Amino acid sequence: MSMEQVSANLAFGGVQGVYKHASAATGTDMTFSVYVPLHADGAKLPVVWYLSGLTCTHANVTEKGEFRRACAELGLIFVAPDTSPRGEGVPDDAAAAYDFGLGAGFYVDATQPPFDRHYRMWSYVTEELPALIAGNFPADMSRQSIMGHSMGGHGALTIALRHPDRFKAVSAFSPIVAPGQVPWGEKALAGYLGDDRSAWRRHDAVALIEDGARVPGLLVDQGTADQFLEQQLRPELLKAACEAAAIPLTLNMREGYDHSYYFISTFMADHLRWHAGRLGAGTR
Amino acid sequence: MSMEQVSANLAFGGVQGVYKHASAATGTDMTFSVYVPLHADGAKLPVVWYLSGLTCTHANVTEKGEFRRACAELGLIFVAPDTSPRGEGVPDDAAAAYDFGLGAGFYVDATQPPFDRHYRMWSYVTEELPALIAGNFPADMSRQSIMGHSMGGHGALTIALRHPDRFKAVSAFSPIVAPGQVPWGEKALAGYLGDDRSAWRRHDAVALIEDGARVPGLLVDQGTADQFLEQQLRPELLKAACEAAAIPLTLNMREGYDHSYYFISTFMADHLRWHAGRLGAGTR
Repeated sequence: MSMEQVSANLAFGGVQGVYKHASAATGTDMTFSVYVPLHADGAKLPVVWYLSGLTCTHANVTEKGEFRRACAELGLIFVAPDTSPRGEGVPDDAAAAYDFGLGAGFYVDATQPPFDRHYRMWSYVTEELPALIAGNFPADMSRQSIMGHSMGGHGALTIALRHPDRFKAVSAFSPIVAPGQVPWGEKALAGYLGDDRSAWRRHDAVALIEDGARVPGLLVDQGTADQFLEQQLRPELLKAACEAAAIPLTLNMREGYDHSYYFISTFMADHLRWHAGRLGAGTR
Repeated sequence: MSMEQVSANLAFGGVQGVYKHASAATGTDMTFSVYVPLHADGAKLPVVWYLSGLTCTHANVTEKGEFRRACAELGLIFVAPDTSPRGEGVPDDAAAAYDFGLGAGFYVDATQPPFDRHYRMWSYVTEELPALIAGNFPADMSRQSIMGHSMGGHGALTIALRHPDRFKAVSAFSPIVAPGQVPWGEKALAGYLGDDRSAWRRHDAVALIEDGARVPGLLVDQGTADQFLEQQLRPELLKAACEAAAIPLTLNMREGYDHSYYFISTFMADHLRWHAGRLGAGTR
């Protein structure tokens, strides 16, 4: 698998790179970013995956996430994929809405035409891109964790719940925790997976927990001034599911914070330290 | 003087705001950003001015500068103005080049038509906007400092050199130190101020120092991989001028760093700590 370096900038002693490759999973070119801290020759570093929210590309967190200082201190590789396939022939939402189609892949493999051809973000993020990372970066793939924001929080939670042996930690900012019960999720899962709601449960964190999936613990930060809190995010559903399943959940309700990267950047270092502790990484 | 709040987001415990007002200096609407850390009721905080480089608006540093954590810790207000007037009737470079006109005001009051009507960034940044900040934010205007990047480094250096009683500290990332001797500066100063080079000296940090202007000290960070280093920035000219004038200059040549915000964000906290020390601010 080959990839092309789009850019590389020194930052906090490491390299913030942006890369492009022809994806077999999506049938399109895909762009992603990777931050690799300064490290000893031959060293392999743990990998933190960051999945972005609706409307985002790799660029939003790369520019606004303020993760590099902590990743440099803790020795963490930080990988940020795109949120959907893009390019000629990739179908979008019929009305070009922001919450379906381009920028809104929802981390599923679509089964419904015309989306089933390119919208295969689950396979891309869980299989193809990890292989590319393992082959091209100094990544210790035995030490991976995953986090995300909003739609990407949904992605991180569902991927971690379905890969309990792969990810040593999972956390989220303002995640969609129960897509089967909220408008964003209902639109996306119906559009990509069809109307049979039983097929949605494998892409719904709360449903996965109800159906027996487990992780050793969860960290979630949620702003109380988030405009999407009550209708789309509903962290109380995750709290109830975790309590019923005895999954330790740290749910930090952050007074006055909203849904933006101003919120994410404020608590990013806290999340990375939490991941580092579970990845056996630490201040060097 | 009235202003309108465009946005306000909680970040690192403080408020990152963006504001718009009708500027008398430029005869246009002007947009700027201000970060105000959490502070006690009635407290007044020192103010750090940040002047941006070519092509930028207030938004670049606001999104990518990674200054909020340090400002919150140190109790510093951070003000980021735009780099030129904008809007209907504001003339641009004849060829719409990036290095003159819109996004390239060079922090001077233009004397040459058609630019003399709106391009009055010197008056805007040194008089009008400070009065607006003093009147609308919890700012201790007896404790101000200034910094900038590239063209904004030029602005910060020249403004500090000409206001030695106002600014307690000045620093720059990759500044244009001698616009009268480099292509960017020659184009801009000729275009805004005319061909008489004697009028340029008051907008040229090296010339100002040669002509007797003084600051108590200077901090400059410069990447060695900066594509503009040799032709446009030439920190060796500032070094020679400071040596001849006995101005203490800390010039950090940063191996492998470029001209981008990846470089700026890496060393932003160092600069803010340096400012805080001279502003009598500190970790609370």
